[in-house]
Parts: sequence; C-alpha cells; structure tokens
Amino acid sequence: RINEQRLWDTLMEMGEIGGTEKGGCNRLAGTDLDKQARDLFVSWCQAAGCDISIDKIGNIFARRPGKNNDLPAVGTGSHLDTQPTGGKFDGVFGVLSGVEVLRILHENNIETPTPMEFSVWTNEEGSRFQPAMQGSGTYVGRFDLEAELNKTDVNGIRLGDELERIGYLGDMELGSRNMGAFFEAHIEQGPILEDEKKAIGVVRLGQGIRWYNIEVIGRPSHSGTTPMHLRKDAMLASSLIVAEMQAIANRHENGLGTVGFMQVWPNSRNTIPGNVKFSADLRNPVPEVLLTMHEELVAFCEKVASDQDLEVKVDHFWYFAPVEFNASDDVKAATEKLGYSHMDIYAGAGHDACYMADLVPTGMIFTPCLNGISHNEAEYSSPAECAAGANVLLHTMLEASER
Amino acid sequence: RINEQRLWDTLMEMGEIGGTEKGGCNRLAGTDLDKQARDLFVSWCQAAGCDISIDKIGNIFARRPGKNNDLPAVGTGSHLDTQPTGGKFDGVFGVLSGVEVLRILHENNIETPTPMEFSVWTNEEGSRFQPAMQGSGTYVGRFDLEAELNKTDVNGIRLGDELERIGYLGDMELGSRNMGAFFEAHIEQGPILEDEKKAIGVVRLGQGIRWYNIEVIGRPSHSGTTPMHLRKDAMLASSLIVAEMQAIANRHENGLGTVGFMQVWPNSRNTIPGNVKFSADLRNPVPEVLLTMHEELVAFCEKVASDQDLEVKVDHFWYFAPVEFNASDDVKAATEKLGYSHMDIYAGAGHDACYMADLVPTGMIFTPCLNGISHNEAEYSSPAECAAGANVLLHTMLEASER
Ligand SMILES: NC(=O)NCCC(=O)O
Ligand SMILES: NC(=O)NCCC(=O)O
Repeated sequence: RINEQRLWDTLMEMGEIGGTEKGGCNRLAGTDLDKQARDLFVSWCQAAGCDISIDKIGNIFARRPGKNNDLPAVGTGSHLDTQPTGGKFDGVFGVLSGVEVLRILHENNIETPTPMEFSVWTNEEGSRFQPAMQGSGTYVGRFDLEAELNKTDVNGIRLGDELERIGYLGDMELGSRNMGAFFEAHIEQGPILEDEKKAIGVVRLGQGIRWYNIEVIGRPSHSGTTPMHLRKDAMLASSLIVAEMQAIANRHENGLGTVGFMQVWPNSRNTIPGNVKFSADLRNPVPEVLLTMHEELVAFCEKVASDQDLEVKVDHFWYFAPVEFNASDDVKAATEKLGYSHMDIYAGAGHDACYMADLVPTGMIFTPCLNGISHNEAEYSSPAECAAGANVLLHTMLEASER
Repeated sequence: RINEQRLWDTLMEMGEIGGTEKGGCNRLAGTDLDKQARDLFVSWCQAAGCDISIDKIGNIFARRPGKNNDLPAVGTGSHLDTQPTGGKFDGVFGVLSGVEVLRILHENNIETPTPMEFSVWTNEEGSRFQPAMQGSGTYVGRFDLEAELNKTDVNGIRLGDELERIGYLGDMELGSRNMGAFFEAHIEQGPILEDEKKAIGVVRLGQGIRWYNIEVIGRPSHSGTTPMHLRKDAMLASSLIVAEMQAIANRHENGLGTVGFMQVWPNSRNTIPGNVKFSADLRNPVPEVLLTMHEELVAFCEKVASDQDLEVKVDHFWYFAPVEFNASDDVKAATEKLGYSHMDIYAGAGHDACYMADLVPTGMIFTPCLNGISHNEAEYSSPAECAAGANVLLHTMLEASER
C-alpha cells in the first residue's frame, strides 16, 4: 500500500509551483514554472535511484532497474503542465502516483522482474501550444517532430525554443524506450464516479476529439455610421458559430461543443471587428457521430460566410480518434484485488495513455474529483481518493511486471 | 480659398505618424505617436503666430489674435488620435482644415474682428480610454476631471499618467476659453454624401449613443468532461448577447448595435470560458427609440443570466444624448455662398462639436469619404473633397467673426 500522507504532501508541494490565490495552478507548458516542476520530479526520481532520459520533444523518462533489465519496462506517467486556470491534480496526480509507487519500491528494496519507468509528457494540456498530448503524440509517431517543435504560442514563441531555454530539449530518439505496458492514473475530471459513489473508474475508451482554428475575415468599419445591412461584422458571424457549436452538441447524444479561445481584431469598441480568430472543440465517443458533428460545423460556417458575405476559414488541424484501452482488465483485476468499488467509464478528455496505446498494452485508472470540476482552480480530490488510485496503479504495475 | 495642395500635404505628413502598411493610421490617445502628432500641430500653429495653451485634460488651444481680443473667439478643432485600424482623415481632417484656415489668415495678414481659436481634443476616439470625446466632454463639464484622469486602458495605464508622460497634462482650467462659436469639419464616415453626390453635409444632429461594459461570469471547466447541461459557459452566453445586439438594431428604424471589443478568460481552448468581458454600443437618432433599445438589451441580458444560470453584469457607463447643432445655418450659408452642393445630414458618430454645443453656438461640416468607410485603414477623401470642406470652414469662421 502506498503512503497516503506522503502522496498528498508531494501533490501539495508540486501545487505550489504556479499555485494561484484560489488554490489552483497556472503552469503552462514550456514556462519557467514548467521547468521548476520538471526539476522537482527529476530530483525526486534520482533520489529514489532512477536514471533520467529526455527525448527530442522534452518528454522525461525515469527508469528504475529490475531483475532483468533486458525485459521491457512497465511504464506509468502523465503531465505536469496545467491550464491557465488549472487545478493541482489534473496530470500531476498521475505523475506523483508514479513517484509514490517508485518510493514504495525503493524504500522496501523491492526488485521487480522488469524495470519500471516513470514519465512526464510535454504539453499534454494543449493550452499554450496545440494540439494536446503533443509530447506523447510525437513520441509515438503521430506528429512530425520538426512541425511540433516549430509550433508557436499566441505570442509567436516556439515550443522548441522554450524547451531548449528551460533545459528540456533532449537528444533521446522518439519511441525508443523499451516499454512493455503503460498505465496512467488520472482524476476523472467529470461527475460520474462521484455520482455513482465509485472509488475507481476502469477506463475503457478515450472519446474522439476534433479541434479547429476558425478565422472570420470581415471588414472593419465604424460602429456609428455603418448601416446594419452594409456590415461585414466578424464578431457577429463568430457569435453565430459559437451558438451553433452548442446546438450541434445538443443534437447528438453525448455530444460536446466548446469555444474556449477567441481573439478579436482590432478590438476597439467603436470599430466593427474586421477579424476574429477562435477555437472550436467537438467531442463524441462514437466516431460516426463525431464525423456528423464535424460536417455540421463545416456546413454552418459555409452558410454564415455566404449569408454574411464574409470569409470564414476553418482549419481542422487535429482529429483524435476514439481509443480503446486494451489493458483495462489489468486495472480492473488490481482494483478488485484491493477491494475498491469500481465501474467502467470512458474518458472525456484526451490523455497521454491514449497515444501510448498505439505502442503497448495500455490502461487508465480514474479517481473521483469534487463536483466533477476540472480545468478550474477549485479542482479537488481527497487524500483517500488519491491514495486509492495510486494503490491501484502500484498493484497494476506490479502484476504487469510479474508477467 | 484655401490651398488644396498644402492641406493635402499636411494630411499626408500627419498621416505618417503611426502610419500603417495598408495606408491607414494607428495612433491611440496618450501614446508616443499621439505626442508626435500634437507636437507637429503645435509647431505649425506657433509658426503661424499662435499662442498655445493646454488644459487639465490635455486639450490644446492655439489662439490667433483678432482686432479686439476681448471679444470671444471663433473656434474650430477636432482630434488627432485614431482607432487601432484608423484612417488618415477621421478627426485629423478637421484639425488640419483649421491649420489651413490659420495659414490662409496668416499669409494674407488678415486681421479678423475676433480672435480665432484652433484646438485638438484629447481622446475623441474612445478606443484606448472610455468614453469617446473624453477631452471635450470633460472641458464642457460633462465628466469629472479626476475620474477621467484616473481612467485606465486594458493594461491598467492611467490617462493622467500618459498625458503627463507625453507632456500634455496642462494647467489651464477647463471651460475657461473665451469662445463665442465653434465649428468642426469632419469626414462623414458614412455613405450618404457619396450616394447623394453632395460635396458638403450640413450636420443638423448628432445621434444618441449608449455604451456598455458587459461581463459574463460563468464557471471555467473542462471542455471534454463537462456535460452540456451542467455548463456555465460565459462564451456561449456572450455570443447570444452579441447576436441579440444585431436583432435589437434591426428591430428599430436607424438602429445600430455593435460589439467591437471582447476579452475571454482564461482563453484556453479546452477550458469552458469562466469570464468574458465585452463592449456594447447602441445608437439611434431618436432618444425614445434608443431608450427602448437599451431596455431590450438589459432585459435580454437578464434573460440570458437566468436561462444559463450565470451572472451577467451590465455597466451602462455612458449615455450620449442626441445633440442638435444650433449654428448649422451658418455652415449652410457659407456652403451656398461658395456654391457647393449640399444636404442636411445627421452624424452617426460622436464628435467634439457635440459637447462644445453645450457651451456655444456650434455647427459641423461633413465631407464625403470613399464608400462611406471609416475606422478602417482604407478610409479616404480626395484632395478636392477635403478642400471643399476646409473652404466652408474658412468662410463659416470668417462670417461668424464678422458678427
Ligand atoms: N486531461 C486533460 O485535461 N487533457 C487535456 C486535453 C483535452 O482537452 O482533453
Ligand atoms: N468621429 C468618430 O469616429 N468618433 C468616435 C466616437 C464614436 O464612436 O462615435
């Protein structure tokens, strides 16, 4: 069994890096705060006897040797970056559950049959740089390394430059770790486990995601002298699309549609906006339904462009297909062995484990979070809820190493 | 008659200060560029024999003595600040028509019966600081000086500090100029004179304006895990209000409704926005209609707040009542004397003359602009169109000085 208090203390210590007044965390990928969090992880792993490797997209791997170091390792990991209004648990809980597993093995001098591997993935959040799960997606070969290093934030700063600046642009080849299975613990980020009073969610599926950059190009003109029918108002056109995103989501079972990001130009109150850029995020667990939602969005954007006589550019830059986790039964077995209540569940968010499932048998362990709230400074999981997830991770990894 | 080429050359020279690639101007109030433009105006007026005074809100007055300097001056003026995507003419044309009038009087050694006064008003645009016509409104006593100096831009920088920094925080008392009439030349900023093929618009009325800061306070949460019916999505709620602004405008004759400014927080694509701030601008020439539009906006915001179970704060911080210009007939007489085609018109935009009408008989002279486009880098008036307006200004001022 893991040490509940120690796990909690590491969560709180890590949460101070970028900690906000409201008790959340603002630790965007590639920032100085990201570096501090990575450094702390590295120091903890080294103190528990691990070797550290950094790959070409900045992912960190800490390896604890086993009996036979030629055997593929059993891996775990998640991310340390957060949303601008993130919590202390999203991602961090998975990384620090790994650290807690490592410490248990270390202090008990347990020699596992295979090596164990503890990882931190670059920019899982997709907030500062897109897409999300950029580190794991690049590691498994879904994305082109150069293209990803060249991605820029809203201020035009390159991911590659930021990784170099903070000392985490490594030279290890992508996809080169000798790993045989991967497990990720994560808070659910939704309300279901809490509603159903279950300690553990055995994650069967990660739902599909489609991400867009949409740009509306109208014509800036005077708010006091331009008659309504002569306007090409990029703000108005954008607002119609935002409202339609909700309508699309509501038309489809389990559909979700969100506009989280918007930039208006010139952003002056008496100039009709000439240009508006915004994000769109559509999700559904069923790929066919998600495709229909996509088609509806594209068609609606075309309609707005023609109705309003302006240009609407839709850049559909990321499709994340639903992923089935093929090592879920390992998670379920460990949960049952430990006697925790559990249920099957699907992940609403994307996770690094979703991409790792391309390479190795993979499973995910969900734990409840208060009111299902995440990407919010109020995000919370209790010490006992966290401990349950970490215990399941420990035993899932031990079982996998035995096989 | 004024010197058409010289007027054009001063317009082009002034337009270089903050000039944009697309031939427009980006010269926000209180910036270094605003200082450069003000300095150039001051140097031109001093070279033509004027005394310069600066008042406590940064308005500049250049006085040319007349035969009897105890008589109230005939004044003209406008503004040198622009929109972020402004043109070379909005405001600047009025100021430089004044400079051209001054030069004509100066080079011909004309001694007018009364002094003549040439002014530049602080922050007419209302883009960086709010409201618009801040300098003239404060001068005539509509706004409280301290409150206006304390206004901040989106970065929290005070207007008062900016005026001091650029050397234009004067000590002359507000409202203290001895002026007997005020005339402002301005491009129309709308399509009517061009459509009607008229050289001059005799402005009878400035329409009413209501400005708002609206803030929607929802709850940030995860775009992938928060079911649609559990969201408090500040972006969605805002988009409904943006769309309603158009609907309100379209329901009322001559109604205008615009959202030109928006800030989204935390502005991360997979976080449902917790907070959105945006502007609203409602206009109508008929005060009763504008009041109805206002009531419809407030009622709609309340409905959105209750439907979406979130908070919508409506700060209606500026009401600009329609203004009748009581010296329009002077403008009309000068126009007819000069033989220009003309029509009566109302101003869609607010102007410094609208506030000056509180204190003295006031008139405005409109000239056509290409395709009615303003607050756009493509804003354009031809040299001949500008010259016509400046000629009318010259003769209107001369006539007023004679009386
Ligand atoms: N776990 C998590 O919040 N991932 C961010 C990527 C997403 O938007 O789903
Ligand atoms: N002339 C002009 O564009 N003034 C700006 C104030 C307004 O929004 O009407």
